[in-house]
Amino acid sequence: MKSLEEKTLHTEQIFSGRVISLQVEEVELPNGKTSKREIIKHPGAVAVIAITDDEKIVMVEQYRKALERTIIEIPAGKLEKDEEPKGCAIRELEEETGYECQNIDWLISFYTSPGFADELVHLYVATGLKKKIDAAALDEDEFVNVVEVSLGEAVELMKDQKIYDAKTAFAVQYLQLKDALK
Amino acid sequence: MKSLEEKTLHTEQIFSGRVISLQVEEVELPNGKTSKREIIKHPGAVAVIAITDDEKIVMVEQYRKALERTIIEIPAGKLEKDEEPKGCAIRELEEETGYECQNIDWLISFYTSPGFADELVHLYVATGLKKKIDAAALDEDEFVNVVEVSLGEAVELMKDQKIYDAKTAFAVQYLQLKDALK
Repeated sequence: MKSLEEKTLHTEQIFSGRVISLQVEEVELPNGKTSKREIIKHPGAVAVIAITDDEKIVMVEQYRKALERTIIEIPAGKLEKDEEPKGCAIRELEEETGYECQNIDWLISFYTSPGFADELVHLYVATGLKKKIDAAALDEDEFVNVVEVSLGEAVELMKDQKIYDAKTAFAVQYLQLKDALK
Repeated sequence: MKSLEEKTLHTEQIFSGRVISLQVEEVELPNGKTSKREIIKHPGAVAVIAITDDEKIVMVEQYRKALERTIIEIPAGKLEKDEEPKGCAIRELEEETGYECQNIDWLISFYTSPGFADELVHLYVATGLKKKIDAAALDEDEFVNVVEVSLGEAVELMKDQKIYDAKTAFAVQYLQLKDALK
């Protein structure tokens, strides 16, 4: 097996924003040559596969400026400083959808774009959902539309590329696999 | 349903690199307030679920500077300027693993990090694999170790977080689903 590690020779901080920061690193490759790596630092995020008692998947329609369009995603959000992922998942589910959950379990964590970013998403499954009375109030500043869909409808939304992101595609496929293994 | 669109008021170009560029956009929210969006532009990428005749999944171990570690991924790579995704998938599979494929079909495309980046990954399934004689030579500048694993081994690698990225997690789950539906 080849040695693959890249050693950092120099780091240039380009940008430090509210969500992401950007640095360019000069690295020494395994063959001794040098190259540059453009790297985004991200605080990490959570996402929640939230299933209602009548087996609907709770999703949010949201405008994504990076894509210049709305897409339909599972509820998700960035980790606050020092926030524990499970607590963040419970918070984001409530803030975006108005649902409290009785049960929430970690499913998987994955890096979304390892070629240029360190964003790690922690995925949870939530059940025992109860609508909070003040859900409408919570939604005020979120700018999302809550949609509840069956698994079959979610698969159609994927085909239509209305569901169009990695974590939600993984979530829908997870529910398809769970269904197939019943 | 609420209107969700965010209008661009001003765009500031922060960085334009070899792979990504970064811009900060001032936007008008649906409620008339303004906010800032930090957005990464990326050329897009392809990834390949490559299955050998004896049903092994071809993967590559690769150092990811953004993560400061190696992970095991399905073969993948960025789109060159004006490159068509299918051709890119065939090229990346050969360059990284030395395999030519007789069949290659599009499976799904998804955005990896819609909250801050426009990176779209196109996922393909390749079969009818033949090792090219000059594979070793092609590998010289790639700095990857090719590993061929069974589906069971891939699931274990996910549990051990050696497989640790969204596209590869989706790929392994796709093969689990295919297996369950047999």
